Amino acid sequence: MSLLDDLADVGRAAGGGYARHGFDRAEAELREWFREQAGRSGLDVETDRNGNLWAWWGEPGRDALVTGSHLDSVPGGGAFDGPLGVAGALAAVSRLRGRGFTPARPFAVVVFAEEEGGRFGVPCLGSRLLTGALDADRARALRDPDGVTLAEAAERAGVDPARFGRDDVALDRIGTFVELHIEQGRGLDVPVAVGSTVLEHGRWRFSFTGQGNHAGTTILRDRRDPMVPAAGTVLAARRVASTVDSRATVGRLVPRPGGTNVIPSGVDLWLDARGRSRDVVAEVTAAAERAAAAEGCTVTVTQESYGGTVTFDPALRERLTGLLDAPELATGAGHDAAILAAHAPAAMLYVRNPTGISHAPEEFAEDVDVEEGVVALARALESLST
Amino acid sequence: MSLLDDLADVGRAAGGGYARHGFDRAEAELREWFREQAGRSGLDVETDRNGNLWAWWGEPGRDALVTGSHLDSVPGGGAFDGPLGVAGALAAVSRLRGRGFTPARPFAVVVFAEEEGGRFGVPCLGSRLLTGALDADRARALRDPDGVTLAEAAERAGVDPARFGRDDVALDRIGTFVELHIEQGRGLDVPVAVGSTVLEHGRWRFSFTGQGNHAGTTILRDRRDPMVPAAGTVLAARRVASTVDSRATVGRLVPRPGGTNVIPSGVDLWLDARGRSRDVVAEVTAAAERAAAAEGCTVTVTQESYGGTVTFDPALRERLTGLLDAPELATGAGHDAAILAAHAPAAMLYVRNPTGISHAPEEFAEDVDVEEGVVALARALESLST
Repeated sequence: MSLLDDLADVGRAAGGGYARHGFDRAEAELREWFREQAGRSGLDVETDRNGNLWAWWGEPGRDALVTGSHLDSVPGGGAFDGPLGVAGALAAVSRLRGRGFTPARPFAVVVFAEEEGGRFGVPCLGSRLLTGALDADRARALRDPDGVTLAEAAERAGVDPARFGRDDVALDRIGTFVELHIEQGRGLDVPVAVGSTVLEHGRWRFSFTGQGNHAGTTILRDRRDPMVPAAGTVLAARRVASTVDSRATVGRLVPRPGGTNVIPSGVDLWLDARGRSRDVVAEVTAAAERAAAAEGCTVTVTQESYGGTVTFDPALRERLTGLLDAPELATGAGHDAAILAAHAPAAMLYVRNPTGISHAPEEFAEDVDVEEGVVALARALESLST
Repeated sequence: MSLLDDLADVGRAAGGGYARHGFDRAEAELREWFREQAGRSGLDVETDRNGNLWAWWGEPGRDALVTGSHLDSVPGGGAFDGPLGVAGALAAVSRLRGRGFTPARPFAVVVFAEEEGGRFGVPCLGSRLLTGALDADRARALRDPDGVTLAEAAERAGVDPARFGRDDVALDRIGTFVELHIEQGRGLDVPVAVGSTVLEHGRWRFSFTGQGNHAGTTILRDRRDPMVPAAGTVLAARRVASTVDSRATVGRLVPRPGGTNVIPSGVDLWLDARGRSRDVVAEVTAAAERAAAAEGCTVTVTQESYGGTVTFDPALRERLTGLLDAPELATGAGHDAAILAAHAPAAMLYVRNPTGISHAPEEFAEDVDVEEGVVALARALESLST
């Protein structure tokens, strides 16, 4: 899709993939691109109180049909996760316009802020703020790895953080939400599927504290090295997840100060748990506490985000699977649609990913499947707006 | 010591302690301070081919008596490790001058570059280059965590990296080397001791490669997550070191790309091993390879530095322990003196550290012990220069 090709060079990361994070330079460039493209499509763009962009086809209003996704990436992410749903929504609008179609209800393309939580840690930041699922004070105080608060970053990007919070005006306008998205696992062997459920999932930060010291002079029995219980916790997470048929990942781990010849004074690691995520974190916490105590260290565990199992609206799923002759697909990936599902009928359309890999440069969709996805989205929107 | 107090605010790190690394801004400020202080003491400062600073008392020449240490720190390091030996050397010179003493042989105070290897990974960088223990081509290509090469950093700091390499002029001038240093363990219950040996030690980088992927959609049996064997390797290092009476530390561990909801594509960790370090690394490598294979990952192990056991010159030790009525002390910490010991009689004088902690903000010496250390150094220098 040529719209996606436009973005190929924005926010390229050094190690391959993309670094596009909430309110950073790359995301700002993508937002500017969205404003331009939406303008060319005759849509009027506005920013809501929480930094989400809304491009309206005609007058904004209640019970709107809304489609869209996000433009940020995970660190080192792929080209499709997020931008496919935004560019696909604009392409679907062009397709509908080209056929002389005009929606019979308010209609918007939305770009949600920081869906991945790659910068401030909380995924679906824009949709959680919008719906009130994330407290505004807590959000303003979130910090990126450089210590910049979300409030500061938003302000620099021209979004007033004082206005963060549940936005009933924006929320009441959402009548139906449909999000086109790259499939992120190996579950799909046809071009397009309709989302059924999203696994329970959450993120927890484990902060281990020990005693920083010299790597050469400190004999083993004098050590209180937080890297040791942190490593034990990584292995415990894998073991626990496997016993309760869940998924657990430690993709981020930061020793402080991080010198080769320095026993760290602290180690932070982040546990991403899906499936029976609260059961996983309870058992992993117990293992972490035992490992910390054995090394003379302490550990504190902080929940950074949590969402229960989401089942998308059955009537909307039935309508879309019938209309598109598409199968249903469950996922372990979180989406803004799963946040909105608590407030309005919401649906996901997934586009086949032949590599089965996502959140990595190998994430991929064939052009023909992307085209099928746009056609499916356009058909869904046409059907839902009349 | 007032000279050390001058430096209290230079290169303060966010989490406590200091961040002063080879050819960075803080180290440049410290070097400028050294030039000024040496000038006030009537010493003539020159920079050698490898970025080490030499302050000469009188004419430079062969068979010189040399004292000094380094000004860089580990990340988050203490105030004494390095600067104590430089400020102490200048204080000892002032003390000797104040008494009308003039050395009977060439005499220099030296500041070695990047002793900790905190930026470019190789400890004792300046002394290893000077002595030829580190190949100049390899050194020029070393990179800091931001990808800046040592060649680039040196050039920006006004040191021509084309001239890096074994410096026989500088080396031939070193007749005897004495380094004053904070003690870094719990071994010392008198104010000052004379170094006996330095443990065999080295640094190895373990690079694990797997498959980056989505933390939510990738089921456990499809994963090739390099964090899992990396964690196993941390635990193996502790286990192996304890069985062979050695020391092993993983203080630096970097997952790539480092996102919470991203299975890493790779993890680098650095093993610091002391004592039977080659035995440790051989066993830990075997454990890492088994763990990597079990996860469908690969691992490569690269030696970044290595030094065998060093025994300081027995005659010099005997002379100093007698002169100072001081005990001998073995250490697991590396020092520039241990690099120079292969080329000239070299000695360490350690100052008591009541916390027993080093490479951390808690590193400490009482003023009275620092003063004892300076007095001991001055006595040693007086004795050795006549």
